[in-house]
Amino acid sequence: MRDRTSNQLFEAYFTAKAMGEVFCDHGRVQAMLDFEAALARAQARVGLIPQSAVDSIRAACKAELYDFDALGQAIAVAGNSAIPLVKALGKQIAAVAPEAERYVHLGATSQDVMDSGLVLQLRAALVLIEDDLARLGEVLARQARRYAATPLAGRTWLQQATPVTLGMKLASWLGAVTRNRQRLLELKPRLLCLQFGGASGTLAALGNQALPVTRALADELGLQMPDQPWHTQRDRLVEFGAVLGLIAGNLGKVGRDISLLMQTEAAEVFEPAAPGKGGSSTMPHKRNPVGSAVLISAATRVPGLLSVLFSAMPQEHERSLGLWHAEWETLPEICCLVSGALAQALNIAEGLEVDVERMARNLDLTHGLVLAEAVSIVLAQRVGRETAHHLLEQCCKRAVSEQRHLRAVLGDEPGVTAHLSAAELDCLLDPAHYLGQATTWVERAVAEHFSLAH
Amino acid sequence: MRDRTSNQLFEAYFTAKAMGEVFCDHGRVQAMLDFEAALARAQARVGLIPQSAVDSIRAACKAELYDFDALGQAIAVAGNSAIPLVKALGKQIAAVAPEAERYVHLGATSQDVMDSGLVLQLRAALVLIEDDLARLGEVLARQARRYAATPLAGRTWLQQATPVTLGMKLASWLGAVTRNRQRLLELKPRLLCLQFGGASGTLAALGNQALPVTRALADELGLQMPDQPWHTQRDRLVEFGAVLGLIAGNLGKVGRDISLLMQTEAAEVFEPAAPGKGGSSTMPHKRNPVGSAVLISAATRVPGLLSVLFSAMPQEHERSLGLWHAEWETLPEICCLVSGALAQALNIAEGLEVDVERMARNLDLTHGLVLAEAVSIVLAQRVGRETAHHLLEQCCKRAVSEQRHLRAVLGDEPGVTAHLSAAELDCLLDPAHYLGQATTWVERAVAEHFSLAH
Amino acid sequence: MRDRTSNQLFEAYFTAKAMGEVFCDHGRVQAMLDFEAALARAQARVGLIPQSAVDSIRAACKAELYDFDALGQAIAVAGNSAIPLVKALGKQIAAVAPEAERYVHLGATSQDVMDSGLVLQLRAALVLIEDDLARLGEVLARQARRYAATPLAGRTWLQQATPVTLGMKLASWLGAVTRNRQRLLELKPRLLCLQFGGASGTLAALGNQALPVTRALADELGLQMPDQPWHTQRDRLVEFGAVLGLIAGNLGKVGRDISLLMQTEAAEVFEPAAPGKGGSSTMPHKRNPVGSAVLISAATRVPGLLSVLFSAMPQEHERSLGLWHAEWETLPEICCLVSGALAQALNIAEGLEVDVERMARNLDLTHGLVLAEAVSIVLAQRVGRETAHHLLEQCCKRAVSEQRHLRAVLGDEPGVTAHLSAAELDCLLDPAHYLGQATTWVERAVAEHFSLAH
Amino acid sequence: MRDRTSNQLFEAYFTAKAMGEVFCDHGRVQAMLDFEAALARAQARVGLIPQSAVDSIRAACKAELYDFDALGQAIAVAGNSAIPLVKALGKQIAAVAPEAERYVHLGATSQDVMDSGLVLQLRAALVLIEDDLARLGEVLARQARRYAATPLAGRTWLQQATPVTLGMKLASWLGAVTRNRQRLLELKPRLLCLQFGGASGTLAALGNQALPVTRALADELGLQMPDQPWHTQRDRLVEFGAVLGLIAGNLGKVGRDISLLMQTEAAEVFEPAAPGKGGSSTMPHKRNPVGSAVLISAATRVPGLLSVLFSAMPQEHERSLGLWHAEWETLPEICCLVSGALAQALNIAEGLEVDVERMARNLDLTHGLVLAEAVSIVLAQRVGRETAHHLLEQCCKRAVSEQRHLRAVLGDEPGVTAHLSAAELDCLLDPAHYLGQATTWVERAVAEHFSLAH
Repeated sequence: MRDRTSNQLFEAYFTAKAMGEVFCDHGRVQAMLDFEAALARAQARVGLIPQSAVDSIRAACKAELYDFDALGQAIAVAGNSAIPLVKALGKQIAAVAPEAERYVHLGATSQDVMDSGLVLQLRAALVLIEDDLARLGEVLARQARRYAATPLAGRTWLQQATPVTLGMKLASWLGAVTRNRQRLLELKPRLLCLQFGGASGTLAALGNQALPVTRALADELGLQMPDQPWHTQRDRLVEFGAVLGLIAGNLGKVGRDISLLMQTEAAEVFEPAAPGKGGSSTMPHKRNPVGSAVLISAATRVPGLLSVLFSAMPQEHERSLGLWHAEWETLPEICCLVSGALAQALNIAEGLEVDVERMARNLDLTHGLVLAEAVSIVLAQRVGRETAHHLLEQCCKRAVSEQRHLRAVLGDEPGVTAHLSAAELDCLLDPAHYLGQATTWVERAVAEHFSLAH
Repeated sequence: MRDRTSNQLFEAYFTAKAMGEVFCDHGRVQAMLDFEAALARAQARVGLIPQSAVDSIRAACKAELYDFDALGQAIAVAGNSAIPLVKALGKQIAAVAPEAERYVHLGATSQDVMDSGLVLQLRAALVLIEDDLARLGEVLARQARRYAATPLAGRTWLQQATPVTLGMKLASWLGAVTRNRQRLLELKPRLLCLQFGGASGTLAALGNQALPVTRALADELGLQMPDQPWHTQRDRLVEFGAVLGLIAGNLGKVGRDISLLMQTEAAEVFEPAAPGKGGSSTMPHKRNPVGSAVLISAATRVPGLLSVLFSAMPQEHERSLGLWHAEWETLPEICCLVSGALAQALNIAEGLEVDVERMARNLDLTHGLVLAEAVSIVLAQRVGRETAHHLLEQCCKRAVSEQRHLRAVLGDEPGVTAHLSAAELDCLLDPAHYLGQATTWVERAVAEHFSLAH
Repeated sequence: MRDRTSNQLFEAYFTAKAMGEVFCDHGRVQAMLDFEAALARAQARVGLIPQSAVDSIRAACKAELYDFDALGQAIAVAGNSAIPLVKALGKQIAAVAPEAERYVHLGATSQDVMDSGLVLQLRAALVLIEDDLARLGEVLARQARRYAATPLAGRTWLQQATPVTLGMKLASWLGAVTRNRQRLLELKPRLLCLQFGGASGTLAALGNQALPVTRALADELGLQMPDQPWHTQRDRLVEFGAVLGLIAGNLGKVGRDISLLMQTEAAEVFEPAAPGKGGSSTMPHKRNPVGSAVLISAATRVPGLLSVLFSAMPQEHERSLGLWHAEWETLPEICCLVSGALAQALNIAEGLEVDVERMARNLDLTHGLVLAEAVSIVLAQRVGRETAHHLLEQCCKRAVSEQRHLRAVLGDEPGVTAHLSAAELDCLLDPAHYLGQATTWVERAVAEHFSLAH
Repeated sequence: MRDRTSNQLFEAYFTAKAMGEVFCDHGRVQAMLDFEAALARAQARVGLIPQSAVDSIRAACKAELYDFDALGQAIAVAGNSAIPLVKALGKQIAAVAPEAERYVHLGATSQDVMDSGLVLQLRAALVLIEDDLARLGEVLARQARRYAATPLAGRTWLQQATPVTLGMKLASWLGAVTRNRQRLLELKPRLLCLQFGGASGTLAALGNQALPVTRALADELGLQMPDQPWHTQRDRLVEFGAVLGLIAGNLGKVGRDISLLMQTEAAEVFEPAAPGKGGSSTMPHKRNPVGSAVLISAATRVPGLLSVLFSAMPQEHERSLGLWHAEWETLPEICCLVSGALAQALNIAEGLEVDVERMARNLDLTHGLVLAEAVSIVLAQRVGRETAHHLLEQCCKRAVSEQRHLRAVLGDEPGVTAHLSAAELDCLLDPAHYLGQATTWVERAVAEHFSLAH
């Protein structure tokens, strides 16, 4: 059972497990220790410190050796997490190999450790998100094709409009997934960048070993070497947050659409059922969109968190106070929320339940009015646009006021029947014949999806 | 040592301990259980359930009886925290007093439990914040009086302007504290309000016992009875968040001012020193404003979090999906950040270190130019406003170009010395004689502070 | 026709005309001139300047005398609007009464003019908003009573739940209106406050005339005198913005609810129709919720604008650069958006079209399932809670799987019919008999509305 | 003189003129008309409408023919700007060539016109921003090189740290400019995309002419053809807003740094002077950072506006109400604010005034303590790291407590002088010898700048 001071009641609901592990205290501490170990290796490679020290340092660079409670208390005095961690690391090493202690953290500043550690975490986060997006793309591509020609009421302003297909709607979600994957590919070289500058960013303390150490360190960590340390240029991080925000927003639309489709009054498409999921003991018919809630929640929370990151960009001189601090919990929170939304989206997309019959029935709720446009266009080719438009307008009004089906009204209207046969009218009032480019859109989205290598 | 999945590394730095306890998982669960226990008492009072059931229910309403990990997993399926908790509570009771189980949670809906539980937590949070604000007011009132007449460079656009006093600056912080205390008093009756409406808010399941139970329940919990359940009218909560946002903003200004005053180039006022606090091993002269960082960080983060709460207000019909969820972690986070900022502000205000001598020296950095206005006004009374203004402008320009002190330039200018004696000029160029209403402002702020009963 | 550089295409849609006039350039300039004129009167009252100067100053304090284009250009150099306006004002006066010019703007600083002018505008804005809220309260009280007992499907998570009434929904909107009116009453004394402090806020330039002038000036303008100038303590303004944000959020819920109720699939409640409003030439059945769009749009935009105001609170020392500037267009924009939302809400509330018959029909969409709770409760009193619950659960499942009405299934179930007569079952499955406290809630909201004097 | 209802007082200060022209009412209307004209040309190309109609349509597609006031009023009824504009366009054409009217807007929906028009405006905006960024890059590259080796106090937490160079600071601004240019290049193909889908996005009304018309239209407008219409997938727009947000944030840092450097107490680097710019009549020594205020203001406002765009992403089904509306004024506002910030940044970077001598003097404010690290490193090579560190710590403490220069204290310490000569100590305490990789960073940033073709 968890510590009574824990604060994770909603974590399983809002965050994917693997992402939670990247950003838990253990993950943070380990990433900083990975930096310190790599720094020792790099400095040994260029001959700055003895190889013998490396093993002692590496042995102490295990997060489980450290007391996170004590670290937390020390952070409150030091003002960052690196100072107390490096101190604790030094003690740990000194207890075993006193001569090695002096080689720890050489030439680095606290922010080098924290930021490079963060980048290592973000790399892990990026892998998780890219994988989930790729899988989501696969599932959506499959589902979009499956329902490519399945008619569904188009809805604009929440009012029924001309028909679309379910596949086309799914393809629109897919398109966004693909664009977001593209964006992540593009930003990767900017994001996965070493932070290493020493006290003010000049690396002066390392003298003419500065560049060789930096290159070796970047190599050890598998990170890019930036133009210069970016202690107070935070656009690399905020850009990543922004693309996560786009993902959250696009998934929010999925949640919005699904929850609207699941309404008792629509009941067309559903999240997959699961025992106990979203049920209500007092209302057995209910199927609460428990997954969509996570999508909408993330799309509501991330924009505010993101505005914090953007607001925190004008960081002073060579290291900020306060603005930098504002990032520490905010960017991880965005990663976690997006991971949870992706997990739910995957679950929804995979297990989508579709009531094709109900979709067809709902398409007839307006008694054919949503297809007036289809009739009007064909009629226009026979009697001219204005006449056709006028005729249809009249018939539509009559259908509404007399509460009859448009098909019936049209069938009674000589101005129409003179030019359109009963069979033609039947066909024109069948949604399946007025789907335009729906399947083209599906194929285009699927093609774009496949053009991105997994 | 903490669980390896914990996520609290920065908690001691950013959150006051007592506030953290209010909103940890234990606090959340206990508050919901307090609601269930009170509901049983209330329903027994009006005779709806047997008194005997109350004790069994109460005995099970202890957070330490529940497995938070399991709850978290169940939340992810149920979509809220009340369904699994009520289920676990039922099991707990059934194991001891099977006949009592049926009387649990009668007529209530999940959101009743979650929201009323939240209000109980917010009441505890409010007490903490009001206490801290009152104490901060005390300290600021004392310090403002102490430095009421201590000259300090006024600074507009970060450029030195006519002098102010340190006390007046402290009094401006105090004024904001007092206004925020006033605001909390005003919103309290709106915030501390019962949530109890059953499935759709009508309390229909309780028949004609609905109102008596509601009144008894409100009484048991010490909460107001609202106009009607507010499941999807969230202004009560958001208003509280907004006042917390005002506190964060006002404290952010404290952090901004302190960190600017602590600059190496100003070095006038400092956060209190403490062993290891904000020091730098490589730069022994540094005194990093570790507390101000928390103030600025909170003032940077809270606006974004607050925008989430405002964005989440348009909740659908009788219960929202997603928007309601967006509040769950956001409002507690705001409370925590503000509590941490208040703790730091108290520490700073109490231990403020002031270098009066340096403040005086800095006031002379412009070689008297910041007092040109003082001379100009007196001279105007003798030679007319335009002449005086023109003379001063010339002398100021000369002082700048010749890098001399304005006092010296004025002393050489016959147009000035003909009307102002050397003693008069000395006095006019003494900041202590050009402080205007500074002490009045201090007294007004202190009086407003004392007008609010502690 | 407007200037080709105008930027007001959406103004009539998003902003109430009267509010637009308060915050247009003319409104801004006139408010600043009103401050200057009042300052002259106040200084004449205490004998600081000759009465003769007052008339000359007043005559020049008319916005229509100034070239806003030229002012705009000068602002870009000066960095605020007061410097060039005071310069232009001086010129204007000098052209007519050269001796009066010297008495303009005495002892004041630019921010005094801009902030006090802003407060005068906000006072006008407040009157408009309070009036609209009061009128909206009136309309909602009337409509809530009218539909107090009109059954409507309750909807939680966008799924049908037990019934509510339309009146109860309207009353929940009314409750929010009343609370927001209360909030405006409370903040008024904090908001309607003079700004007057001179260069650094000490009013030193006015010597011992400072307080008398300040009091006279506050009196002339009908504003409160604050504890001290609040040049960099912006909570007064931000608090107002926050309450406007609450109004926007509460109205956003109105827009959300209306647009959901107007869905083709629900079609229960509508915005009033108007020629050309929300129609679609190609889809004659459509009734786009053109007013609700404004409500939702405002509720989406205001939170972000508000976060700007909160973010801009930590203003440096005695005058901020940049953070203060961030307020200039933001707070007026919030006022304008809220005014537009209020205008639309009034229109919607007044002209609400209600399809009572459709509401009843939709309540039967689940074939009685939404009333299972009602049956279960009465049955429980006869056969015990568990048995009743189990019976109902079985019947509900059967109703769903056999696609029959719950009434029919119950009528076939001996375990039910043994205890409930056909007439009882009919009654229990009538939504009108399961409305709980709906009318009580309406009366309570109406009573709270009337407790606030108009 | 402007209309009295104009609202543009701060426009010249906050917005670049050319950008204002892109987004003024005229710009909006013209862009929509450009779409209509191109649609006619495209449909004529594929033979859908007669070539003769194209000229009549084109002739009417001039913004100056329309009454913006009347349009604004009609928008308030129609709920968008395309319906009334298309109606007015039809009338305009009908008056001249009645037979051509029927060919206007064929198969298009309102959002097609509004969104494609917007994309045309954004293309113009993008050109302006790319040009300004390129020019800013040029200037910063030049200035960074000029001051590549000019020592400046490094400042972390607003406390002096080891020295940097002014060039290195300028290069860090340059790096951000280059990355933002890269980002704009990458997003361009996603942003500059046609919107064309008809009522629900299927283009059904155009039958089998749909794709040919779409391709011709994209070609006419020089826009990409998207996977499918993106009426409710807004990531393309929001991504652009986000990169503008990054630019605003990076420029905000420039404004923050400049305004801190301009402080009376630092006085190292200044915005260019200009007659009347940022001056204060009462305080002749002041140089208010009038340009930096715009940079900070934009960096404070854009994050909130951006959060609106992200919040508005979950748009319902095939067309949103309210969320779409929330974008209309928000994205243009972001473009305008960023344009104004860029203009100011260019002005500042070009006219930067640098007081090299004061920078040197300020570097000595700590009496050598900021260079203790330099001494410690060299000493460590001679006496071991611990001994060296201990010695330096003692000397620094003594320097502080005795208020002496570190050089003097070190010269008196035999433990130091035994290993370092007076000349060595002089050199170690000269900031110019402890600048690390400053010039390397400059060269790297400049190289990255030049690697992007202008």
